[in-house]
Amino acid sequence: MPSPLDVEALRSRVQKVLDDALAHQAEVLEAVSSDLAPLAEAVADLTRGGKRLRPAFCYWGWRGAGGRSDGPAGEAIIAAATALELFQAAALIHDDVMDDSDTRRGLPSMHRRFAELHRGASWLGAPERFGQAAAILLGDLCLAWSDELLTASGLDESALARGRPVFDRMRTELMGGQYLDMLEQARAGMAGDAASRARRVIRFKSAKYTIEHPLLLGGSLAGGPPDLLASYSAFGLPLGEAFQLRDDVLGVFGDPDQTGKPAGDDLREGKRTMLVAFAVEQASPAQATALRRHLGDPRLDGHGVQVLREVIVETGALAAVERLIESLVAEAAAALDSAPVAEPSRGVLAGLVEAATSRHV
Amino acid sequence: MPSPLDVEALRSRVQKVLDDALAHQAEVLEAVSSDLAPLAEAVADLTRGGKRLRPAFCYWGWRGAGGRSDGPAGEAIIAAATALELFQAAALIHDDVMDDSDTRRGLPSMHRRFAELHRGASWLGAPERFGQAAAILLGDLCLAWSDELLTASGLDESALARGRPVFDRMRTELMGGQYLDMLEQARAGMAGDAASRARRVIRFKSAKYTIEHPLLLGGSLAGGPPDLLASYSAFGLPLGEAFQLRDDVLGVFGDPDQTGKPAGDDLREGKRTMLVAFAVEQASPAQATALRRHLGDPRLDGHGVQVLREVIVETGALAAVERLIESLVAEAAAALDSAPVAEPSRGVLAGLVEAATSRHV
Repeated sequence: MPSPLDVEALRSRVQKVLDDALAHQAEVLEAVSSDLAPLAEAVADLTRGGKRLRPAFCYWGWRGAGGRSDGPAGEAIIAAATALELFQAAALIHDDVMDDSDTRRGLPSMHRRFAELHRGASWLGAPERFGQAAAILLGDLCLAWSDELLTASGLDESALARGRPVFDRMRTELMGGQYLDMLEQARAGMAGDAASRARRVIRFKSAKYTIEHPLLLGGSLAGGPPDLLASYSAFGLPLGEAFQLRDDVLGVFGDPDQTGKPAGDDLREGKRTMLVAFAVEQASPAQATALRRHLGDPRLDGHGVQVLREVIVETGALAAVERLIESLVAEAAAALDSAPVAEPSRGVLAGLVEAATSRHV
Repeated sequence: MPSPLDVEALRSRVQKVLDDALAHQAEVLEAVSSDLAPLAEAVADLTRGGKRLRPAFCYWGWRGAGGRSDGPAGEAIIAAATALELFQAAALIHDDVMDDSDTRRGLPSMHRRFAELHRGASWLGAPERFGQAAAILLGDLCLAWSDELLTASGLDESALARGRPVFDRMRTELMGGQYLDMLEQARAGMAGDAASRARRVIRFKSAKYTIEHPLLLGGSLAGGPPDLLASYSAFGLPLGEAFQLRDDVLGVFGDPDQTGKPAGDDLREGKRTMLVAFAVEQASPAQATALRRHLGDPRLDGHGVQVLREVIVETGALAAVERLIESLVAEAAAALDSAPVAEPSRGVLAGLVEAATSRHV
């Protein structure tokens, strides 16, 4: 079984690929104009902070399907896996614009960063509009660079032809999931089963693209057989849901120093998480009033956050989500147990369960 | 020499590829949720209105390099060329968000369309924020679908390996050019040679990706030799600049029924075109005051548009741009004359010069 050192080694190999890819893109931009230097720099800063979960699942999905760790293919799979970090960067940058978030990974969000650049230079026009437009372009660049990195990874054509459909489905389903998420917030007052709709959002907006699709990408690139790929789904989907539920819990109760986001940001944005859906379902009239009053209030202060936390605990929503996380993790573990995955992948994937769903980020 | 019928035939083949590609994506989205139906529909509506200039230059670049018009490769190149329409759709959708434009190709811009959907359904939250977020996601989808269509075009791997670097450079340079454009508007008051900076913006934001890169993509996919590709650049870059200058003139003086955009929209946005740069350079103190007062005024009315038009005519800026267009078109025509391009491509490319720079859109 690989030691934590292997996980660390993968991280530094991913960082190296990112460094090289972004240095190349910085050159392409520099050839247009030296004014473009801040673009690649900003992407380098953002991507430095990733946990590399997606590349890890992709890489161990590859290894679990018999993909080589050495030789040119062993290098190429790292580049392909790193494409997922650039895709994730694109999703985060655009997501922060859509949610108007201030921070990301402990840094100012991209649109805030470029608004600051504008403000500092005393340029004309509104800094916020400039920042937003720059962030839209930066997300577009990351999307393009992600796909460029996958294609230029060095994997052979038959491997890429197997992996592409997974990559393509991942992209379309993620954007679709994000639209569903917006729709869910917009229809928050609607009758119906909010918890099951929130769960569908989780599935497409987060679970699939964080764990299942990276695993399937790695497994498909390596030419894994259908039963292995099916077991990756059986393992990855519940684990991905558990990951997102943990993220939702941390978004409400987490330590800002660890999450890199201000306390209660999700509450302020009015995110329709399972946590919120359960709380709404079980709320007494007084609790329902508090939820309606504070949830999604852009000016929500520390007191308001505290009130909502109490409602979420007292309605039993937190306990219900923790139970759901536990049962999803158990489901994932059982799927891994019966999956035709060889060591060392099996051991690392089991370790990644803990990394993806632990109470500590 | 191909008749206008050939040009028309290409258009309908591009439309067919778009229809099929979007029907496929609609199915992928539908499998996530029927709530996603408006997404593919909106892209279908937007892309229906394109002039197909980019696919045309790509296709005739292919043919001019000896690419076949029949058999599987003759089908595949149409799909690859159509990828440029989806890329263009992505650029337009995001550009409209960044500029907060109301209309595109005679329809409401994407963010307006989804704001309307939100308003009509009386959902919670601000319709504008919903519309903007939806448009960001739709642009992302078009970017992903564009690259998916190129890869799945059916062209063989060696062809794609030659074309990819062109496609990748096109994407990065376009986003870089758009950022330069924003920077130019933000620094509008800066001293220096505004006209030469405006020209650099034109080159990267428009000229290269409208004509030169599509030609190079087609030529590279067909395996065209370096001298042919060099002549495509010598032809395509000046023609692309002329195309953008014509577009700028139409943006100020064009008939809204023909341009699909309200009269004076570019003036209202404060776009730093060559037309404006020349006008600023040659303005008398009174004309300079008028420019400062009206240019970029979001509330600019018909009278203000008229005042600016007069300044642009009276400073000689319009005449200067028309002369520049003429000389660029002549440069492009001379490059085509000496280019090693066989018929029928030579004749069609000559015809496309007129289509790209004519006073009538």
